[in-house]
Amino acid sequence: MTSSPPLVPPPRLLMGPGPITAHPRVLQAMSQQLVGQFDPAMTGWMNDTMDLYRRVFRTANEQTFLVDGTSRAGIEAALVSLLEPGDRLLVPVFGRFGHLLREIGERCGAEVHTIERPWGEVFDVEEITSAVARVRPKVLALVQGDTSTTMNQPLAGLAEALAGDDVIVYCDATASLGGNELATDAWGLDVVTAGLQKCLGGPSGSAPITVSPRAVELVQGRRHVEAGIREDRDTARGTRIASNYLDLAMLIDYWGPRRLNHHTEATTMLYGARECARVLLDEGLDESVERHRLHGAAMLAGVQGLGLSVFGDQAHKMHNVVAVEIPDGVDGDAVRAGMLTDYGIEIGTSFGPLHGRVWRIGTMGWNARRDAVLTTLATLEQVLREAGAAVTAGGGTGAAREVYAG
Amino acid sequence: MTSSPPLVPPPRLLMGPGPITAHPRVLQAMSQQLVGQFDPAMTGWMNDTMDLYRRVFRTANEQTFLVDGTSRAGIEAALVSLLEPGDRLLVPVFGRFGHLLREIGERCGAEVHTIERPWGEVFDVEEITSAVARVRPKVLALVQGDTSTTMNQPLAGLAEALAGDDVIVYCDATASLGGNELATDAWGLDVVTAGLQKCLGGPSGSAPITVSPRAVELVQGRRHVEAGIREDRDTARGTRIASNYLDLAMLIDYWGPRRLNHHTEATTMLYGARECARVLLDEGLDESVERHRLHGAAMLAGVQGLGLSVFGDQAHKMHNVVAVEIPDGVDGDAVRAGMLTDYGIEIGTSFGPLHGRVWRIGTMGWNARRDAVLTTLATLEQVLREAGAAVTAGGGTGAAREVYAG
Repeated sequence: MTSSPPLVPPPRLLMGPGPITAHPRVLQAMSQQLVGQFDPAMTGWMNDTMDLYRRVFRTANEQTFLVDGTSRAGIEAALVSLLEPGDRLLVPVFGRFGHLLREIGERCGAEVHTIERPWGEVFDVEEITSAVARVRPKVLALVQGDTSTTMNQPLAGLAEALAGDDVIVYCDATASLGGNELATDAWGLDVVTAGLQKCLGGPSGSAPITVSPRAVELVQGRRHVEAGIREDRDTARGTRIASNYLDLAMLIDYWGPRRLNHHTEATTMLYGARECARVLLDEGLDESVERHRLHGAAMLAGVQGLGLSVFGDQAHKMHNVVAVEIPDGVDGDAVRAGMLTDYGIEIGTSFGPLHGRVWRIGTMGWNARRDAVLTTLATLEQVLREAGAAVTAGGGTGAAREVYAG
Repeated sequence: MTSSPPLVPPPRLLMGPGPITAHPRVLQAMSQQLVGQFDPAMTGWMNDTMDLYRRVFRTANEQTFLVDGTSRAGIEAALVSLLEPGDRLLVPVFGRFGHLLREIGERCGAEVHTIERPWGEVFDVEEITSAVARVRPKVLALVQGDTSTTMNQPLAGLAEALAGDDVIVYCDATASLGGNELATDAWGLDVVTAGLQKCLGGPSGSAPITVSPRAVELVQGRRHVEAGIREDRDTARGTRIASNYLDLAMLIDYWGPRRLNHHTEATTMLYGARECARVLLDEGLDESVERHRLHGAAMLAGVQGLGLSVFGDQAHKMHNVVAVEIPDGVDGDAVRAGMLTDYGIEIGTSFGPLHGRVWRIGTMGWNARRDAVLTTLATLEQVLREAGAAVTAGGGTGAAREVYAG
């Protein structure tokens, strides 16, 4: 017998920057029994999932599917498949995840150029387009919503401004998708990736991706078929993609009508990803964004109503997360521990230059809800008072209620 | 509203080469609610999972954890982290998954050397050691059980024979672990990876891995810390690993006491992987191997009792899968479709040189069971008869019953 006990998760309300509490429908879907990899039921669900995510990403891209890994696997699949060693990559960096794009680009052997904004700010579209004109990159890689700073980079108008350039635009929408507007085709984004653990209300472990026809063409130019699968192995074309697991050309063959064996699709994660999209589309994309806007506004008003300050350019904050400055003299980690221990509520810490300076409080997915917002504010008031902070009694829930009252 | 219906999997008994029907305890664990990434409950389960897989792999390796992807992600994490461009890699190839190791090694930029055996055979230990002496590779990469051929490569004695060499031994135990003996430390294997979807009775999507101290040292020599995480970013050491997502040095920092943020752990897959190990260890490793031996022997006897021939060197067959030759004049795909449509039972097709020549029938994990074996044989008899094959009435279940009767 094992010494470890059965898994009984403690009750938690996850109000950090993600992962967040999963939607019950998603967990129900993920408890379903498996079918075979090429079962007609399975390939039907794969096709169905492609269609659902086309709607989620607002795209007509045929090549819209899942990468079997966390959101970071989706990012790396995009960059390693698009970039050959020596290719120029431009990354506008305004938080931790911009650094990640730069880092992955470097590992791909790309010549990486960055422009940077201080944490808490975003770029003007003109700053990006002028950098593109200067650097002339093959790929422009951008984060839409960077949870490290809570900022949401405006992307509308970028493609029109870049129309004369031949740059492939990649966007990491992990933190923003479902809670903030994203229009892949209307905005001219070539490749967009996401994860389930933010506004989609699922667990980490599956990365939806969409790839435009011209990005597919680029990737297919580097396509190789694995030995031992078929006798008619393709001969080399272009520089082979450095990863097998994250090779988008092979993933396209696997998800497409050829169904060419690659990895064994992570069935349970597919069930979860499919249900995340169904939950979102049942509500409606616009309705989900509006819900995230409302509850994000209530949380923002609430923390301000408690007397706390917030970090960053609030005009460009994502709807689904707010960075709250830790008051002087208050131990940020002790407050987080108090929230978790006494109330079962998780709020987030932060990274890099913001470490120890802000908490990050999320209102996303299933937890972008009135009771979740009000409970977090009510309990945060108690914990802050116990920590010796000056807080306005009832100021948090009161301000949030005012937002809800319109 | 979405047009897609809720997910209701059709009833299936998955008797192919994997994925197989998941153990009910695993699905129950995977339906549990999420907790935060650094919640004490979560980090406790992570530590617990490391300990459980040390026992599964029969190792004392501190660095035993999960890679967040399918078994193929674990393979690539091992090879990309161990191999620098130009390093020599030796791969003994005796089936499709040997080709995969070669392929991934090539993508890592390694100088790849192979020795090959025809499909259906394994190597003598001396063939491998003499190739090591000739090639002097940095890494020797082997598949233990290759489902493409059903063969199980003997590994005991290999490390002793290689004692004078400084070669790092990597083993892909995806298909074999839990159903066939594997002794990481006793056999001197440095890095072993697996998946959940075979004898462990879970879904694809998580890759357990164990890494020996000397392999850890090698990997740590290539360690880099991501920008934007901490201010004290390490300066470059060794050649940076080409993948960020599959960088074992970063995964070790994430799973270790530093808990340095990397990906967001796939919580639900961790729940599943942990429960797979608990189910296996509750039964006992030796008991599980013996169960797979018994039901594999019954299935082998059963298909032979139906009058069918089997493919490959039966003295070196994995316990958990058998390759059955498709009789002349019988349409292999039609038989598989008949099994699925009329009986809800999946048996496997095959790849490469065996495509159209054999079916692969598995008895693994939760499905290494008497009723699963007997039902498969009873229904296969019917389908074969309908397909015009000469089959011995009652010969399959009869022969299997004899095995069970001892």
